[in-house]
Amino acid sequence: MNELVGPVHVVGAGLLGTSVGLAAARAGLEVWLTDLNHEHVRTASGLGAGRPAPAEGAAQLTVVAVPPDHIAEAVVDALERGGVVTDVGSVKGLPLSQVSDHVGEDLLACYVGSHPMAGSERSGPLAATAALFDGRPWAITPHVHSSATAIDLVEALARLCGAQPVRLSPVEHDRAVARTSHLPHLLAVLTAGQLAEAQPEHLSLSGQGVRDVTRIAAGDPDMWGQIIRANQSAVSEILRDVQSDLARLVDVLASGDPDSLDEILTRGVSGTQAIPGKHGGPSIATASVFVSVPDHPGELARLFGDVGEIGVNIEDLHIDHDPGRPVGLVELVVEDTAAEELRAALETREWVTHR
Amino acid sequence: MNELVGPVHVVGAGLLGTSVGLAAARAGLEVWLTDLNHEHVRTASGLGAGRPAPAEGAAQLTVVAVPPDHIAEAVVDALERGGVVTDVGSVKGLPLSQVSDHVGEDLLACYVGSHPMAGSERSGPLAATAALFDGRPWAITPHVHSSATAIDLVEALARLCGAQPVRLSPVEHDRAVARTSHLPHLLAVLTAGQLAEAQPEHLSLSGQGVRDVTRIAAGDPDMWGQIIRANQSAVSEILRDVQSDLARLVDVLASGDPDSLDEILTRGVSGTQAIPGKHGGPSIATASVFVSVPDHPGELARLFGDVGEIGVNIEDLHIDHDPGRPVGLVELVVEDTAAEELRAALETREWVTHR
Repeated sequence: MNELVGPVHVVGAGLLGTSVGLAAARAGLEVWLTDLNHEHVRTASGLGAGRPAPAEGAAQLTVVAVPPDHIAEAVVDALERGGVVTDVGSVKGLPLSQVSDHVGEDLLACYVGSHPMAGSERSGPLAATAALFDGRPWAITPHVHSSATAIDLVEALARLCGAQPVRLSPVEHDRAVARTSHLPHLLAVLTAGQLAEAQPEHLSLSGQGVRDVTRIAAGDPDMWGQIIRANQSAVSEILRDVQSDLARLVDVLASGDPDSLDEILTRGVSGTQAIPGKHGGPSIATASVFVSVPDHPGELARLFGDVGEIGVNIEDLHIDHDPGRPVGLVELVVEDTAAEELRAALETREWVTHR
Repeated sequence: MNELVGPVHVVGAGLLGTSVGLAAARAGLEVWLTDLNHEHVRTASGLGAGRPAPAEGAAQLTVVAVPPDHIAEAVVDALERGGVVTDVGSVKGLPLSQVSDHVGEDLLACYVGSHPMAGSERSGPLAATAALFDGRPWAITPHVHSSATAIDLVEALARLCGAQPVRLSPVEHDRAVARTSHLPHLLAVLTAGQLAEAQPEHLSLSGQGVRDVTRIAAGDPDMWGQIIRANQSAVSEILRDVQSDLARLVDVLASGDPDSLDEILTRGVSGTQAIPGKHGGPSIATASVFVSVPDHPGELARLFGDVGEIGVNIEDLHIDHDPGRPVGLVELVVEDTAAEELRAALETREWVTHR
C-alpha cells in the first residue's frame, strides 16, 4: 500500500495545512480537516481544502501542521488513531525524540517527519494556495525505525504537492536549517536590534542594504522563538562559530590588516555564490534595464502595459524603495541579448532608461 | 557668492561623479571632468556630463568622487587649485583628519565633506543617471573650520541633484553609517561566510530569507574593505556591542528561557519598524494580491499588460525567486481598498490569484 490514495487528514488548517489540503483535494483525494479554531476549518472547507474530520477512523496519511510547541503531542495523537503520520514543522530532531518517549516502536515506524521549504509572511487559511509548494524543496527526514511504506507515502505527498523531495536525517536537516534559516534570522534580528534605539536622524541615512538584511527580523517573535528553541543545539553550535568569526573580525579591524579583512569579505562573496540560483538550474546571463518612473497613479501600470506590448521576457524585476524619492527606479532584468532591444523600445515610448 | 553658478569640477568620473555631472549639466552649469582613466572622461562627456577639465583654473566647486583610499589626496589637490571642495565618500572623519594634516586653516575652511545615500551595485560612468539622487538623503558634514559659504555651496549641490540635505557632524555621520550600513554589511558577510563551505544538499534548503540577508555580502571586497577600514573606530565600537548581544543570545539559548529570547526577537521587530518608510512619509495601508505566473517567455509581460489595462496603481511588486519553482508567484502590492478590485479583474482574465 505504497500509493497515496487518501484519506489525508490535515491537523492544523493554517497556511501550510490548508495548502496541503488544497493540493491533495486538487489531486482527487479525500481530505479531512481538524483545527482547534473551528473558524479555520470552516474557511479551509469553503476554499475546497477538504471537510471537517469525522470523530473516528484512521486516515491513510495524517499531516500535522500545528505550531512548533504542539507538534509532538499532535503526532502522538495521530499515531494512536492509526495510519502514517508526518508533520511539516521547521525542526525535526526534537519532535522525533518527544514522540519516541510516548509511543512504542511499532507506532513510531509509521512516523516520518518532513519540512516543505515554503511559507509566507502571511498566515492563516486565507493565504493558502495549492501552488505554495510548486518546485520547492521538501525535506523528508526518516528515522532509523521509519517503515519503507511510511517514507514512500510522505514522499508521495510532497510530489503530489508539486515539491521536490530531499531526503535527510533529522539531525542533518536541523543542522542545515540552523545554517540556512535560523542563523540568518538571528543575525537579522541583531542587526535590527541595533536600530531599535538609534537616533531618527541617523536612521534617515538607511538605504536598501539595511532594509534587505533586516526584513525577516520582522517575523513573529512567538513562532520564531518556538522554532529556535526547538533547534537549540544546532543553532547554539553555529552561533558559537559565528562568535569566533566575529571575534576574528574585531581583531582584524583593530590590527588594520587589509589582507585579512579582504579575506573575510571575499569569503562572504563566495557564500552568496554558493546559494543555488533561481530554479535550481544553471543561471542564464542577464542584464538590467533601469527605468525612471514618476510615482504617480498609473505610471507603473503604463510601464507594464508597454513592457507587455514590447514582449521581451522579464526574468526578474525590482522597484527601488528608498525614502523620499519622488521618482522610482524600476529594474527590469532580462536575458542579456534582449536588454538593448528593450531599452531602445522603451526610449521610443519616451521612458527615461539607464543601463 | 553663496549661489551655485559653476563651474563644477568633478574629480572621478565613475557612477557617482558622472551622475553629479549629469545633474549639474542638466541645471545649466558648466561641468569639468577629471579621471585617471581617460576612457571614463570620454564616456561621461559623451553622456553629456561635462567636458574634460582645463589644465589650470579654479572651479567654483570641486566634487571629489574617487575610491575611499584616494579621497584625502584628491581633496588636498583640489583645495590647492582653489574654490570650495567636497567629496562624496562613505566615511567622513578620516579624510577630514588627513586633509587637516596637509593644509592650513584658510584652505581647510573651503572643505565640507558630504555623502549622498545613493549608489548601485553597478559602477562606472555608463551606469550614471541625473536621477540617481532624486529624493535621497545627502549627508552634509561641515567641520568647525568650514566657512558658511562652503557649507551653502555644498548644500546647493545636493539640492540641485534633487537630494534632501541632512546636516551632521563628521563623527555623527560615521557613527550613523556604522549602524545603518557597515554593520549590516559585515553581518551579511558573516552569515554568507557560514554558507561558503556548507554541503550542497544543505544549501538546497535555502529560501528567500537567507538570500535577502546575504545579498549585499556580494559587494566588491576591495571597495568595502577601504570603507570599513576608513571607519574603523565607529565600526569596532558597534561590533563590540553586537558581540555582547550575541553572547547574551548564546546564554539565553543555553538557558532555554523563552521570555528572554522573546525579548531579543521583539527588539528586532522594533528595529525593523524604526527604519523610515518608503518616501519617508507616513505609510499608506496596502494589501497584496498574489498571482501564479507560469515561467514561460511572455507570461510576465502578459500579466503586466493586463495590470496596465486594469489601471490599478501598483505600490510595489515582488517576484518569488525560489529555486526549482516552475510557476513564479508575483506579489502585487496595492492600496488596500483596491486589492479586491484588482484580484477580481485578474481572475476575469483567467489569472490564478491568491490573497
